[in-house]
Amino acid sequence: MIDKLKVMGLLVRALEEDIGTGDITTNSCVPADAMADGAFFARDELVVAGTELLALIYDLQGGITSLEIHTPDGSRLQSGDKVASVRGRARTLLTCERVCLNFLQRLSGVATMAARYADAVKGTRTRILDTRKTTPGWRRLEKDAVRAGGGVNHRFSLGDGILVKDNHVAACGGVAEAVRRARARGSAMLKVEVEVVDLAGLDEAIAAGADIVLLDNMDDAALSEAVRRAKGRVLLEASGNMTQERLPRVAATGVDFVSMGAITHSARAVDISFELG
Amino acid sequence: MIDKLKVMGLLVRALEEDIGTGDITTNSCVPADAMADGAFFARDELVVAGTELLALIYDLQGGITSLEIHTPDGSRLQSGDKVASVRGRARTLLTCERVCLNFLQRLSGVATMAARYADAVKGTRTRILDTRKTTPGWRRLEKDAVRAGGGVNHRFSLGDGILVKDNHVAACGGVAEAVRRARARGSAMLKVEVEVVDLAGLDEAIAAGADIVLLDNMDDAALSEAVRRAKGRVLLEASGNMTQERLPRVAATGVDFVSMGAITHSARAVDISFELG
Amino acid sequence: MIDKLKVMGLLVRALEEDIGTGDITTNSCVPADAMADGAFFARDELVVAGTELLALIYDLQGGITSLEIHTPDGSRLQSGDKVASVRGRARTLLTCERVCLNFLQRLSGVATMAARYADAVKGTRTRILDTRKTTPGWRRLEKDAVRAGGGVNHRFSLGDGILVKDNHVAACGGVAEAVRRARARGSAMLKVEVEVVDLAGLDEAIAAGADIVLLDNMDDAALSEAVRRAKGRVLLEASGNMTQERLPRVAATGVDFVSMGAITHSARAVDISFELG
Amino acid sequence: MIDKLKVMGLLVRALEEDIGTGDITTNSCVPADAMADGAFFARDELVVAGTELLALIYDLQGGITSLEIHTPDGSRLQSGDKVASVRGRARTLLTCERVCLNFLQRLSGVATMAARYADAVKGTRTRILDTRKTTPGWRRLEKDAVRAGGGVNHRFSLGDGILVKDNHVAACGGVAEAVRRARARGSAMLKVEVEVVDLAGLDEAIAAGADIVLLDNMDDAALSEAVRRAKGRVLLEASGNMTQERLPRVAATGVDFVSMGAITHSARAVDISFELG
Amino acid sequence: MIDKLKVMGLLVRALEEDIGTGDITTNSCVPADAMADGAFFARDELVVAGTELLALIYDLQGGITSLEIHTPDGSRLQSGDKVASVRGRARTLLTCERVCLNFLQRLSGVATMAARYADAVKGTRTRILDTRKTTPGWRRLEKDAVRAGGGVNHRFSLGDGILVKDNHVAACGGVAEAVRRARARGSAMLKVEVEVVDLAGLDEAIAAGADIVLLDNMDDAALSEAVRRAKGRVLLEASGNMTQERLPRVAATGVDFVSMGAITHSARAVDISFELG
Amino acid sequence: MIDKLKVMGLLVRALEEDIGTGDITTNSCVPADAMADGAFFARDELVVAGTELLALIYDLQGGITSLEIHTPDGSRLQSGDKVASVRGRARTLLTCERVCLNFLQRLSGVATMAARYADAVKGTRTRILDTRKTTPGWRRLEKDAVRAGGGVNHRFSLGDGILVKDNHVAACGGVAEAVRRARARGSAMLKVEVEVVDLAGLDEAIAAGADIVLLDNMDDAALSEAVRRAKGRVLLEASGNMTQERLPRVAATGVDFVSMGAITHSARAVDISFELG
Repeated sequence: MIDKLKVMGLLVRALEEDIGTGDITTNSCVPADAMADGAFFARDELVVAGTELLALIYDLQGGITSLEIHTPDGSRLQSGDKVASVRGRARTLLTCERVCLNFLQRLSGVATMAARYADAVKGTRTRILDTRKTTPGWRRLEKDAVRAGGGVNHRFSLGDGILVKDNHVAACGGVAEAVRRARARGSAMLKVEVEVVDLAGLDEAIAAGADIVLLDNMDDAALSEAVRRAKGRVLLEASGNMTQERLPRVAATGVDFVSMGAITHSARAVDISFELG
Repeated sequence: MIDKLKVMGLLVRALEEDIGTGDITTNSCVPADAMADGAFFARDELVVAGTELLALIYDLQGGITSLEIHTPDGSRLQSGDKVASVRGRARTLLTCERVCLNFLQRLSGVATMAARYADAVKGTRTRILDTRKTTPGWRRLEKDAVRAGGGVNHRFSLGDGILVKDNHVAACGGVAEAVRRARARGSAMLKVEVEVVDLAGLDEAIAAGADIVLLDNMDDAALSEAVRRAKGRVLLEASGNMTQERLPRVAATGVDFVSMGAITHSARAVDISFELG
Repeated sequence: MIDKLKVMGLLVRALEEDIGTGDITTNSCVPADAMADGAFFARDELVVAGTELLALIYDLQGGITSLEIHTPDGSRLQSGDKVASVRGRARTLLTCERVCLNFLQRLSGVATMAARYADAVKGTRTRILDTRKTTPGWRRLEKDAVRAGGGVNHRFSLGDGILVKDNHVAACGGVAEAVRRARARGSAMLKVEVEVVDLAGLDEAIAAGADIVLLDNMDDAALSEAVRRAKGRVLLEASGNMTQERLPRVAATGVDFVSMGAITHSARAVDISFELG
Repeated sequence: MIDKLKVMGLLVRALEEDIGTGDITTNSCVPADAMADGAFFARDELVVAGTELLALIYDLQGGITSLEIHTPDGSRLQSGDKVASVRGRARTLLTCERVCLNFLQRLSGVATMAARYADAVKGTRTRILDTRKTTPGWRRLEKDAVRAGGGVNHRFSLGDGILVKDNHVAACGGVAEAVRRARARGSAMLKVEVEVVDLAGLDEAIAAGADIVLLDNMDDAALSEAVRRAKGRVLLEASGNMTQERLPRVAATGVDFVSMGAITHSARAVDISFELG
Repeated sequence: MIDKLKVMGLLVRALEEDIGTGDITTNSCVPADAMADGAFFARDELVVAGTELLALIYDLQGGITSLEIHTPDGSRLQSGDKVASVRGRARTLLTCERVCLNFLQRLSGVATMAARYADAVKGTRTRILDTRKTTPGWRRLEKDAVRAGGGVNHRFSLGDGILVKDNHVAACGGVAEAVRRARARGSAMLKVEVEVVDLAGLDEAIAAGADIVLLDNMDDAALSEAVRRAKGRVLLEASGNMTQERLPRVAATGVDFVSMGAITHSARAVDISFELG
Repeated sequence: MIDKLKVMGLLVRALEEDIGTGDITTNSCVPADAMADGAFFARDELVVAGTELLALIYDLQGGITSLEIHTPDGSRLQSGDKVASVRGRARTLLTCERVCLNFLQRLSGVATMAARYADAVKGTRTRILDTRKTTPGWRRLEKDAVRAGGGVNHRFSLGDGILVKDNHVAACGGVAEAVRRARARGSAMLKVEVEVVDLAGLDEAIAAGADIVLLDNMDDAALSEAVRRAKGRVLLEASGNMTQERLPRVAATGVDFVSMGAITHSARAVDISFELG
């Protein structure tokens, strides 16, 4: 179940911005007491996500008597599959249609892309990670959609993980000192990840006591050598220049994770429709 | 200038979700009083948008002493062009980096796609319209980005325009009655648009007194015939199955507008980077 | 049905400011579990409005078991008519009494004044329009009350209509240029209204392609001439120095609309009472 | 100085509801960098109030370079007097004009009516009180305007005073018990006011230890007798059927206060204009 | 019943700050549909407070099917007494456990300390008052807890009472002028309290017409003399250097109130546990 | 620097609840334009915290011309030391006094208690941890105060760390399975802590791959044996029945952390005063 407290603000904002001063067309044409049935259908091959938002959106607008989700988040659908059925005031169904679709299509787009990448490394030890390159305001929703598609979540925020990058190292005068400072500020409880761009950096990070090392923009040969050198002492995350085609080769190197910003920053909306009657 | 009142809530939410309980890494590694310079660069050919958000984001976090936007929204950039320069607390620059980029990359992605479509109909009477298929919570920002790219905005919300669709017609028992009701509810002040799927529908809409007719999913021949029949009595908007390749042919039919949901629902983030030092 | 999302913030604020740190008198004198019946009565001849707020107000405070609205918004009442019946915790009835009445009396005052003006033009083509001279924070509620009284709504905000005034004309160097610019910024979808103060201005506005012309402060003779000249090419709205007595004469000129700020900025509260038991 | 924290929410709401998705007309016609001068003028004889809101409204919208208030709240103005001068972005002046006037006209209307009543009892011991019959959301602003006009504030909310009415008495089985309970719940610190409808009620209230007695709907003779009987042991507040004409006679009875709901629930907006240039 | 409107913001904030980006441990280990029973137990001798918050907290998180409060606020409990029973989704019980306990333990700590002091003056005319030294954000909750323990509430805010301190006197040039000004600003309706540090101050305050006098930091002999001099013309409140041991002696002087900041600023959390199963 | 975004909501709430409908006393007695100097002084031996809030509080109320913090958070003060100096409108100084003190006294109380415990383990490897037993709404402020006193922060929320307790183990059928599930839900990035009550539990937790083990309610001998068995493979945190007196003996066992809820749930306000003039 999604966390209502986190998402409600965004839903209210979404309805407010779309309804504006009122749905003039619907309010003029459709009687206030008219009831109707509606349904959401996949119009493409996709992995669905965001279905739990429907109840919250309809609840904010009011007037729904029944809502059934037929395919929970993470379901793999074919074109024509029915995602959800709803019954209630016809005005509510029409007025909320676009907001419902905007959420469903976008989140299912993220889940579908995550699934495509997860499938590409299936059967290996490698898992697909998301990043913080999410749509501002949608962090939690998109991270949920990534998991629905079979991906794994990296940090939710700058507050629940330590990731030492080159600027941090520069400010501290070295990787070792950066790691030491990061641990000192109350974060013995958190793992420390260090970003490196070559194998020398990997050695330095391991020596400094990193728990995870982010291998940025390395080719497959370098990644293989990194796995060999690490000897399981740290978790290894590869990132940069990743494509669906390359993923099997990267997974073959034995890295623990591949992180891909595109899952959230460049997923396209998938086709889902809403039909009345 | 963007409307601060509308966008501030989203910016606060964006910073809160990304910073979480605090940027542990930066706060541990970088002294509170360290100052730094930074700059945003285009890493691709793109049309930039969202630059006015930078000042608001940095202002919320605090500690910035100067910020200069070199390329205002709508500028067409080459890879390497400098978008903006900033100076201030190093902590602020590092902590805000990802939120700034998430906004810039996404909005510039929208502007870039809008520009590509607008270019495809350049020199014709046809203009590119956006739709309500925007990212929930981002309606205004994305509509601004569409204009930055050379597109034209359709309705901002259900409250500032009337668009009669088949469900509305069905509820009223006919196009004429739907248009009459829509005008009656105080909206003599608003134009009435009617969606039709064939030429018979167009005739009916014109007879009913529509100001604009949305021609849904018609081929180029049908669009040409629609323009001929309308004789300028209504504005014509074409939508459905539009691609960049088809746009010149659609424009050649003489329709006033082509609306494309993809501009906002499927734009990919473009590559913009932030560099310290 | 009113739009809950829009009005809830005002209701919360209204209860908070009236209850303050708690209704000491009621909480001291009335047992927490005491139940009571109450009813709202018209104490004057009036058109009622705001009745849908009662359920929302009581719901925020809690403890109501039944609520029945006997006279929906727009009903014309005589002194003594029962507006609504409510049953629930006596504390809630007493604590919410003043806020309920403050809303009902004021909104019914607006509806009553709107009805008086609408009656004065009954049987003619002329309709009574409201303006943006509403109580800040109450725009939507007062516009709903205007319709309940038989008036017609003008713009809800600066975003859903174009009204070119003298300052806009001055900034553009002429009416024609002002209208052209207003249309260019994405608003082919919106009608353009132009304010004029004499017949020459009317001619210029029509020539510039205005859809509606606001005739400001003209006498009845000028209004008649304006109707004659316009020949139905534009909608005509008269405003300024309107009184109930003059309305029939203005309607006789044939203008489409008369707009009156007094409906919302100077309506007096009408007398409605709340009785326990 | 008004309390910014309290009023800011209303101002934001007022701007949002009036600007909607943006002031299309102004943004289309007036260049973003055009500067202008403006001024507010009284167009009637009035007591001004609400002037401190101007700075807050303009500050929310941005772009003002100077603002001078020439006549602080409470000033008695003639038609033509200049209330305030402002200089800044022409767009801001035009977009904020209506919201500024809506506040100024309404609050000055309250102050003007309060002054008229206060003048009617000038030179006597009697003071004019407001009530809780204020515009929901405007409690504090209207109470400030009442003082600007020379009135005195009664309770701000149900939490800062005790007023025992007939329903409270009924729930307690008597005035004495009602007063006792009201004091017991931590409010030895607050005065207790009791509402009575005749002289027997007055005697009972005094015996019960009331600090203030509200004499509801009594004629002048009864009020005189009440003053005689009270012998200064309690403060006396008269209410009901008060008109400006009757006020001097009521004041002559020697009551301490006359409370009048009309000051806030039925004040008419007074005429104030905004002129550019 | 507590006022939901006031407390809901704090509860939302409390859940948000404690749950952060989600209760990873519980969500990973406990199935979404697992149900469980739980109960809160006193683990110490205490006076309970805050029990009405449980329903609100669980309601925000969702998934509770029953909740029973066995010991309402103000109950005196022994170790082992069951405070409340709850049944619902196991995830909700686990995720909300800490927030529920943090509220219960702290508010019961306040009630317990208030009860200890109230017991110390039992049988005398003296009552225990709280102060404004409450936890910011918790004013209302802590004041409710004080009453649950048998204390009496002083002012809720600076707006519902007048308390003239030395700085106010200094600004006015004397107690008499300070009292006069305080009454003049619309507060004939409020009692006036004056703070004094010696008996001369008391005489001056009474002469100035104070309703209540705060005797700050006086010893028992001075308090007795103050009671003698006041002759019941004013209420007397003693404060400063109060301890549980001294309270009976202070009560013996005959003062009406003793106010103690420690009740709210230094109460320790009492031991309450939550048990599953 | 504290995170303004997080704390502002609480500060606004604190001012609103304390000021209520306005500081009647101050506004009546002190002229609006009177200026004054003030200062905060320690009246006890203490470690100060919360000083950065002063600027934010005064800024919300307005009218301060200078503010200087003499002793930053974490400073160890003697009675009489000056914490901060402020100059501005006398009204602002008086109206904000109590809110400023309520924050300073409470947060300094937490820092002072943390320092006392940190001192008790000085020179050992053991560090003092806080818990989630914080004042709801104050999580971040109190955690900052703990660090100011020399303590170390444990989790900020349920979202930035995994702590497997007995209920989680029960739901999973064993420690090993609980740890496996916790890691699987995207949290390879987070350390896993397991709570145990005896040495057998410790062995099981280590075998399951825990990173940290919480030793609950063990005596010093058991703690020593735990350290011996763990052989540095996991971090060890001791909790339960901790007192200042016992801390040196616990530190002598060699555990890495001692966590103490009392630091935040039972710290007493320390004495800090505000003086005008």
